[in-house]
Amino acid sequence: MASKQQRLPRAVREQQVIDAAVRVFSRSGYHSASVDEIAEAAGVSKPMVYIYLGSKERLFTACIHREADRAVEAVRAALRSGEPPELGLWSGLREFFGYVAANRDAWRVLYQQARTQGEPFSQEVHAARCRVVDEITRLVVAGTALPEGGRIVGERDAEILARIAIGAADALTDWLLENPDETADSLVDRVLNLALVGVERYQTGDIAAPAPGTAP
Amino acid sequence: MASKQQRLPRAVREQQVIDAAVRVFSRSGYHSASVDEIAEAAGVSKPMVYIYLGSKERLFTACIHREADRAVEAVRAALRSGEPPELGLWSGLREFFGYVAANRDAWRVLYQQARTQGEPFSQEVHAARCRVVDEITRLVVAGTALPEGGRIVGERDAEILARIAIGAADALTDWLLENPDETADSLVDRVLNLALVGVERYQTGDIAAPAPGTAP
Repeated sequence: MASKQQRLPRAVREQQVIDAAVRVFSRSGYHSASVDEIAEAAGVSKPMVYIYLGSKERLFTACIHREADRAVEAVRAALRSGEPPELGLWSGLREFFGYVAANRDAWRVLYQQARTQGEPFSQEVHAARCRVVDEITRLVVAGTALPEGGRIVGERDAEILARIAIGAADALTDWLLENPDETADSLVDRVLNLALVGVERYQTGDIAAPAPGTAP
Repeated sequence: MASKQQRLPRAVREQQVIDAAVRVFSRSGYHSASVDEIAEAAGVSKPMVYIYLGSKERLFTACIHREADRAVEAVRAALRSGEPPELGLWSGLREFFGYVAANRDAWRVLYQQARTQGEPFSQEVHAARCRVVDEITRLVVAGTALPEGGRIVGERDAEILARIAIGAADALTDWLLENPDETADSLVDRVLNLALVGVERYQTGDIAAPAPGTAP
């Protein structure tokens, strides 16, 4: 009779190996981490790791993919919660930063480390980022369509809005990792307050906006 | 008597070699570019290139540094123009995108290509980016201080504002490179219009902002 371990479906087993790999890479960094360590952390034999996921390089790539999927899913869930899109955007940021704050180590290795590692990892991170950009853009384009037809902002402007949100989220993620005393909520509240200060100062005439199209 | 060529100060000559290197790297990419090509483009001998700037690797690094200096200088000039800081921020974005749009090829090689090239270039790009971040942060912190003492927003919030501006500029630079029919001015006008649409819809109650600190 097969042991309990053997009866687990391969997909489940693979996810366990990836979970273990994320932990080990996060702790040791890509170069120092060994497949032995990962096999031990996953509770499987080293040959099994190779059968499931190939080389250490392919294992790292699988980690990048899986974590990118999770980050996208966190944002997507927030954006399809049925809130109005502008509230959904804030919920999306909160979910995303919550994901990062809960996975600071994984984020450091899988994003910051991988993107500067050279090929093929920087390419993988770039591809994962493009997937996130496309997904968020799709959601923002859909979210700025009016129910009666027509759009709040044009499609190209919706793209720009999505890029601003993603670029800001990117930069603020680095800031969050540099400031371990901040949480996802404290960060989002700061950003929200800044937006409200901006609106208020514009209303009272304390700040001005240049008129569009007035560039020299 | 020294020839005209020899009488040029070394610093000027170095800048000429770097100018030529930026052109050659932009055209051929880092791997395909040769020091022979760069020497010819600069009008100096190949040994002179090595004497001035060392290896092809060090030459590429010098290009990254120089272009980062120029990008910082473009933004700094706009921000110290004596405009109120919030208008200065828009001028800064316009200057920066103008710089990128006028140097699309250089930007692709020196920023996009270098950051995914692995060590030591990704480290150089990261260091250059940190210099830009520090510089912009310093300017935003200074620009949000009130003349009578006190501050419009706290220092940490000013840091966040700087990061948002930089992250957005980063992401929009990629978008600008993907959309060659857009100019720096058309992009900044789009962003400005989006901000004004946001303020207007907030004023009319068409969009709501969540109250800060209301996270679950």
